[in-house]
Amino acid sequence: MSILTVGTVAFDSIDTPFGSADRVLGGSASYISLAARYFCDDIRLVGVVGHDFPEEYRQTLLDGGVDLEGLEVDPDGKTFFWHGEYHYDMNERDTLETQLNVLEGFEPEIPEAYRDSRVVCLGNLDPSVQQDVLDQVDDPEYVIADTMNFWIENTPDSLRQTLRRVDCLVINDSEARELADEPNLVVAADRIRGMGPETLIIKKGEHGALLFTDHSVFSAPAYPLEDIQDPTGAGDAFAGGLAGHLVRADRYGPDALRRAVIYGSVMASFVVECYGPERLLSLGPIDISERAQSFRDLAAIPSLVPVEQQPA
Amino acid sequence: MSILTVGTVAFDSIDTPFGSADRVLGGSASYISLAARYFCDDIRLVGVVGHDFPEEYRQTLLDGGVDLEGLEVDPDGKTFFWHGEYHYDMNERDTLETQLNVLEGFEPEIPEAYRDSRVVCLGNLDPSVQQDVLDQVDDPEYVIADTMNFWIENTPDSLRQTLRRVDCLVINDSEARELADEPNLVVAADRIRGMGPETLIIKKGEHGALLFTDHSVFSAPAYPLEDIQDPTGAGDAFAGGLAGHLVRADRYGPDALRRAVIYGSVMASFVVECYGPERLLSLGPIDISERAQSFRDLAAIPSLVPVEQQPA
Repeated sequence: MSILTVGTVAFDSIDTPFGSADRVLGGSASYISLAARYFCDDIRLVGVVGHDFPEEYRQTLLDGGVDLEGLEVDPDGKTFFWHGEYHYDMNERDTLETQLNVLEGFEPEIPEAYRDSRVVCLGNLDPSVQQDVLDQVDDPEYVIADTMNFWIENTPDSLRQTLRRVDCLVINDSEARELADEPNLVVAADRIRGMGPETLIIKKGEHGALLFTDHSVFSAPAYPLEDIQDPTGAGDAFAGGLAGHLVRADRYGPDALRRAVIYGSVMASFVVECYGPERLLSLGPIDISERAQSFRDLAAIPSLVPVEQQPA
Repeated sequence: MSILTVGTVAFDSIDTPFGSADRVLGGSASYISLAARYFCDDIRLVGVVGHDFPEEYRQTLLDGGVDLEGLEVDPDGKTFFWHGEYHYDMNERDTLETQLNVLEGFEPEIPEAYRDSRVVCLGNLDPSVQQDVLDQVDDPEYVIADTMNFWIENTPDSLRQTLRRVDCLVINDSEARELADEPNLVVAADRIRGMGPETLIIKKGEHGALLFTDHSVFSAPAYPLEDIQDPTGAGDAFAGGLAGHLVRADRYGPDALRRAVIYGSVMASFVVECYGPERLLSLGPIDISERAQSFRDLAAIPSLVPVEQQPA
């Protein structure tokens, strides 16, 4: 069982009202891979870095069992850099600086050995690059994709083309509202599923996530944390846990998807506890299993007795 | 088994981008009573209206089995009036006009027959009025209270006095953050429970509700509705369903509280489907039982298999 993930590998600088981190390992492909590897031992990364990408960060990914044959090193450019600042309540952030660097004009070349990947996880990238990747993979069992407002606004046609090839779209609530041009999330979900993805997952940050399939809606809680250090990467770790569980289960039906949303939420809840991907480097399987069980306890509704009172 | 509810009985005028309602029956005590009566046949209302309160609205409450011995009619004044406007996404609203009218200087007098009430539900009112009510009740088994930013900001000492006498506080997330002066809801909940209420319920509108007790946190989903007509009264209907189930169950432990939060959420989900309290007048017990079951389906997490993969 294998997961191919494509996305950014980056330097992140992060400021919060409570602390900061400078040029830590970041990017969607890093977070997806480092989360998914807890569920699957064949994680393949496709991305690009510059000449300044340190051996130490490369080793962090390798030590985590992430295959880097697909990580291109561009000797003429610098690694993608993002600098963001979180506000006091940690729910909103401003981007202070983005340097695309080697990401500009990135044309992924999928190694021969990656072509048989079972699950493909398309991190947030230009939708035409996402399609390029799909074109080079044989016949994946399941395609998961992320996107963002920038592509919804600037490359809507290309995004629609990607969506037609996606099984499961994972976006946040403001992106869902914008993509569907509709404030009500239930109506928006219907509309987005009509664009291609049979399954839609809407991430709501501290409010959990919603899973829409043909048969049902599932509302997953967020883990109530007392101390949130850094929300960066939580959405990508969510996608990593999600993809990881699906590959592990080798099922993509409604129950497998519900469990996968919980494992995604678990991985996101760990990521926010530390700056950068630090917490993803120190977890054991028991940590993950215990927290997943905590999610079940958190959401458990005891059996109900029918209401009989007929008002006067 | 009996519930005493004190709060406003009002005229509401409501504007939404999709329609409007003019001077419909409103107020916290109306919504609480009309929701609670599905669970309990002894609902006692304490409030005040003016000479302009129509017989028709009085009859609506009486037809619902609400005891109005405690509803004072002030012949010299007019009924409390609220006019609000909702925005496109229905999550935010502006108050366009508030006329306190007879509510100004309201000093509730609890009828003799109400003094043995088992559960007291203190709707959002001046905290000193809430205490006045508690002073006139013998020894209630359980006290539920609501409040709002206005009292948190303007009568903090009086509010603290009320809180010491409350078993379960039901407020929304922005109120919780303001009351605790803390953005993180988990930390805020700890702080607020230290002020008196053993149980805290934080309502998050379209994101559901959180229940904090000594032993656990419970995250209840919101019902995913395609069509929200009017959110007015949803929070009060929540309190009504909550109080109603607790009285019906005659239990106040963690499991009873979880179920009560679900029945509160059920009643809130019905209220928003129509303008004013209309939907609360047409429900049958089966509607309520079926929707409560839908909440269980919505939140159900299938059993989980421990994660075994130890990353490289």
